[in-house]
Order: sequence, then structure tokens, then C-alpha cells
Amino acid sequence: MELIFLGTGAGVPAKERNVSATALKWTERKGRTWLFDCGEATQHQILHSPVKLGKVDHIWITHLHGDHLFGLPGVLGSRSFQEAETPLTLFGPEGLRRFVDTVLTVSQTHLRYECEVREVTSGVVYEDDDVRVICAELDHGIPCFGYRIEEKDRPGSLRTDLLQALGVPPGPLYRRLKAGEDVRLPDGRMIRAREVLGPPKRGRIVTILGDTRPTEAAVRLASQADVLVHEATYRAREAALAVKHGHATTVDAARTAERAGVRTLILNHISPRYGVEDEPELLAEARAIFPETYVARDGWCYSVISRD
Amino acid sequence: MELIFLGTGAGVPAKERNVSATALKWTERKGRTWLFDCGEATQHQILHSPVKLGKVDHIWITHLHGDHLFGLPGVLGSRSFQEAETPLTLFGPEGLRRFVDTVLTVSQTHLRYECEVREVTSGVVYEDDDVRVICAELDHGIPCFGYRIEEKDRPGSLRTDLLQALGVPPGPLYRRLKAGEDVRLPDGRMIRAREVLGPPKRGRIVTILGDTRPTEAAVRLASQADVLVHEATYRAREAALAVKHGHATTVDAARTAERAGVRTLILNHISPRYGVEDEPELLAEARAIFPETYVARDGWCYSVISRD
Ligand SMILES: [Zn+2]
Ligand SMILES: [Zn+2]
Repeated sequence: MELIFLGTGAGVPAKERNVSATALKWTERKGRTWLFDCGEATQHQILHSPVKLGKVDHIWITHLHGDHLFGLPGVLGSRSFQEAETPLTLFGPEGLRRFVDTVLTVSQTHLRYECEVREVTSGVVYEDDDVRVICAELDHGIPCFGYRIEEKDRPGSLRTDLLQALGVPPGPLYRRLKAGEDVRLPDGRMIRAREVLGPPKRGRIVTILGDTRPTEAAVRLASQADVLVHEATYRAREAALAVKHGHATTVDAARTAERAGVRTLILNHISPRYGVEDEPELLAEARAIFPETYVARDGWCYSVISRD
Repeated sequence: MELIFLGTGAGVPAKERNVSATALKWTERKGRTWLFDCGEATQHQILHSPVKLGKVDHIWITHLHGDHLFGLPGVLGSRSFQEAETPLTLFGPEGLRRFVDTVLTVSQTHLRYECEVREVTSGVVYEDDDVRVICAELDHGIPCFGYRIEEKDRPGSLRTDLLQALGVPPGPLYRRLKAGEDVRLPDGRMIRAREVLGPPKRGRIVTILGDTRPTEAAVRLASQADVLVHEATYRAREAALAVKHGHATTVDAARTAERAGVRTLILNHISPRYGVEDEPELLAEARAIFPETYVARDGWCYSVISRD
């Protein structure tokens, strides 16, 4: 599981940071990739990244401001141009469907693949065998969501040392025990799966938030997350501007991370007023409150390692 | 008058060529700039160019395919973000208004300036004291226009040598003669403007076409132009593909240039299948028919020099 930061700036593209887009690449699942937000020129950033457009099967839009949205039409069109034929699902606030429909119709873009738009409100918005996604509304002036991606816990490893001591020979029984099934041996003994499995492997949790002022919803979405990706449009002394424009400062992000008990905080959505030379200060402000903080840069990859 | 090629590729962005956008900078008119087409990431290309977004006061869209259109929302938004307050007028085919309205509404983009959309059909679509723009529909499968920008002829220079020989002293009279007015001197003599003015300065003509198969409309729009910017999506041997997809080859472009009697042909909208290493061949194919041909590249500037 890898986060690839494609655009870490705010509002308008700058030479150092493009507008918002973050990829979550499921390295364990054949490189299947999710995109969070899709600012203009996200497809250009992808050209220079390890992300493959054809592998992107879900796109999650936090809110419909242009710096999070205007790259979506190009991503949809180019994914088709590259002859991807697997379905794509888009999640985002109300209005996303109207945007996509109008843009595709007016430009006569005919997609080769099925493209479904799901307008979210809050709660569990996605679930499959491996993952669950929960979203909740933040505080940004317009409908804006945060997404909590919860990998499901996986069964622990089979303790083959124990099985061998019990005289259970390797074979199909092992697979059934591994899957959590209790089995009866030919000699009549009952083997309980929970007795021969190690502790379950905790699924990872990644929380990616849209733009927001500090809010309880952010703390809840980030609770105990392995990684929290949080906007930090402004440095601490611009707190008044942040409140006015519905944004967070470095300090707001760090406080949310601390209260939520996350392992790692990654700041993004940095205002173009700050250059790379300002990064140490942004970082210091957040680290004074939450030491495990990083500032994302365009092109940066971060591996989300399991806690176990 | 300078052409600045911001995006010279076709269909999808490639590392070497972005999707369509061409700026026409009126260096004689305080850098006032017109944009022709606006593919995704045009604002990013502008960041690295001599174009100033705030100076862009007219945007001309040839057709609504995504590679000519999807950068428009970002240009509109960022022009406002940069606090431009002068009006902006957009020209393009029917559907442009719906696109702009939906995109601005859904993204809650509030422009600080007046933004008018004019949906064109054909004929004279713009005229001021200095310039006239004529458009006509091309042959691309969807409504697609070419624009002929005609600078109006300007009066010739005042022949001060002649005036001095006639004993007319420099002063306000000179300005009136220069403007084409006949004047009576204090001693009763009549001086005819046309007798003391050099030959009128021929206005320049620049023709910028949208995507098209060869068509008479293109020849008419380009007639006697100083510069014709023509798509050449394909090389000559892909003529069948070009016809199928509503495009031109290098040879189609050269033939149109020759028939129209233009001075210079600039090829753009080059398919991403061709790299810079293929340029000599593309160029050779066109030059065999029309020697004054160039292939545009992203970032390339071309000064349109007056014929006089
Ligand atoms: Zn926003
Ligand atoms: Zn086209």
C-alpha cells in the first residue's frame, strides 16, 4: 500500500506544486490504484509517476472546487484513449454527476468503459472483501468530505510448529484451518482454528481528508489511522485567514492528528505562497505538537507499513 | 504580433507536446493576448511562457473536443485568482456556454471579472478599430471552426521630406494629415493627405484552424495569410486514418497552404505517436509541396513580420 502524491498545492498550480491529487496504490492487489481528488493536469503528473491510468478503478473526489476537480475530464478521456475497458467508479459530493455528464456530453467524449458516479453523503460508502471506506462531511463552506480507508483485519499465520507437534500432517486441512475453520482429524480429534492461528493481522487505516477547518468529523475519520493526509494550506500565524477561507493551518492539522491518535501525519495542500524554503518552518510548527509529521511534495511516495 | 505555441500535440498530453493551445500576443498593443484553444494544463504552460493570464482578453475555441477545451476552467479560475478584473470574452461553437456555466456553477467558481460567452456560426465574429476576425466551419465531424485574424491596413507614414519642401512646418497639422485628413494652410493652400502619405501599411493576416480534413473553407480562411497554423495530426502515409478521424496529414496542410497562397505554414496538433525524431520526416513531406513550412513545438515563439 503506497501513497503517491501527484499534486500537493492549493488553489492554483505553481511551479513546485500542482493542484490536488493523491494516488493510493494497492501494491498487494496487482497495483490496483485509487485516486483521491483530481486537480487539473493530474494526468500529466501521472505520466511522470509509477501510476498507470488503466489500473485506476476508483476515484474519490473530496469536494468540487476546481483545484480538486478540473483534471477529472482529462483523466476519464485519456483512460479511454489508452483503451482501458475495465469499469471505473467515481465518488464525490452532489453535483459530481452533473459535472461529469455535461463535460462528457459537450465534448462528445465516448468512454470505452463503464463509468459510474456515486454521490456520497456519509457513512460506509464502499466495501469489498478487503477494504471498507467510510466518509464524513468536513467544514469547508461547501460540501466537502474526508475518506477513511480501512483495510480489513486478516487472519493470523498458521502456527505450523504447533500443528506438527500435534501430529497434523501438512495438506488440505491446513488451508481450512488457515481460513478459520475448525476441523476434525481422521483420528477423531477436533482442532480449533483459533488455537493454531497466530494473532490476526491488523488492517491498515489511511485517512485522506478534503479541505477543512478543524472539526470533530476529521478527528473521528482519522481515529487510530496509520496515516492521516491532512491539508495545511497556511502556516500557524495565518490562522485568521485559514478560518476565513475554510482551511487548516499546520497547527490545526497537528492537533487533529494528536487527538485522533494517528501514527503518521502527512501535510499537503500547501498554499503557493510558500516555497520549498518555507517547508522547514511549516514542519517545525506541526512537529512541535505532533512529531511524526511530514510535508508531502509532488512525486513523493510513502509506503504504508503494517503495524504488526 | 507574436504566436506562442503552448500546446502542439493531439488527443492526449505527451511528455514532449501538451494538448492544444496557441497564444497570439499583440506586442504592439500593450501585450494584449488572445488564446486559441485551451487544452488541459494550458495554465501550466502559461506559467513557463511569456504570456500573462491577466492580459488574455479573448479566448477562441475551435471545437469542444477535450484536448482543445479542458484547460478552460482552470484558465478562467486562475485569471480570477490572480485578481484580473478586466472583461474576458470567449468565442466557440454552440455548447461552450453550457460547458462554462455548468463548470463554474458546480465548482462554485466566482469570477472577479465579467466573462461573456459568444457562440459563433460563421462570418465576421469580431471587429474593432485594428482587427477583424472571420470564422468558418471546417470538416471535423463535430462543429469545428477556423479563425482568420485580419489586422486592418494602417495609413502610410507621413512624408515629412515632402511637407518640408512644401514649406509646411511641423505641428498639429501633421497629425491631421497623418490621420488622412486634407488640410488648408493659413496661406490658403490645400494639402491633400494622400499626396503626402506613403503607401498604406498592409495589415497582417493570421489564420488559425481547428482540426479538419482538407476543405474549401480552410483555403478561403487562409487566403493570402501571412501565417497559417494548420493541424497535421498524421504523416502522409496515414491518409486513411486522417480521413477516418476527421484530421489532416502533413501533405493536406501543405496543399491547403499552397492553394491559399499563404506566406508561411506552421504545422501543429501532431499525434503523440510521433516523437521529435520524426519531425524531419513530417517537415520534409510538407516542404516537398510547400517549402515555407515549420513544425511548431511547445514553447516556440514566432514573430509575424509585416510584409512591407
Ligand atoms: Zn477547496
Ligand atoms: Zn478534435
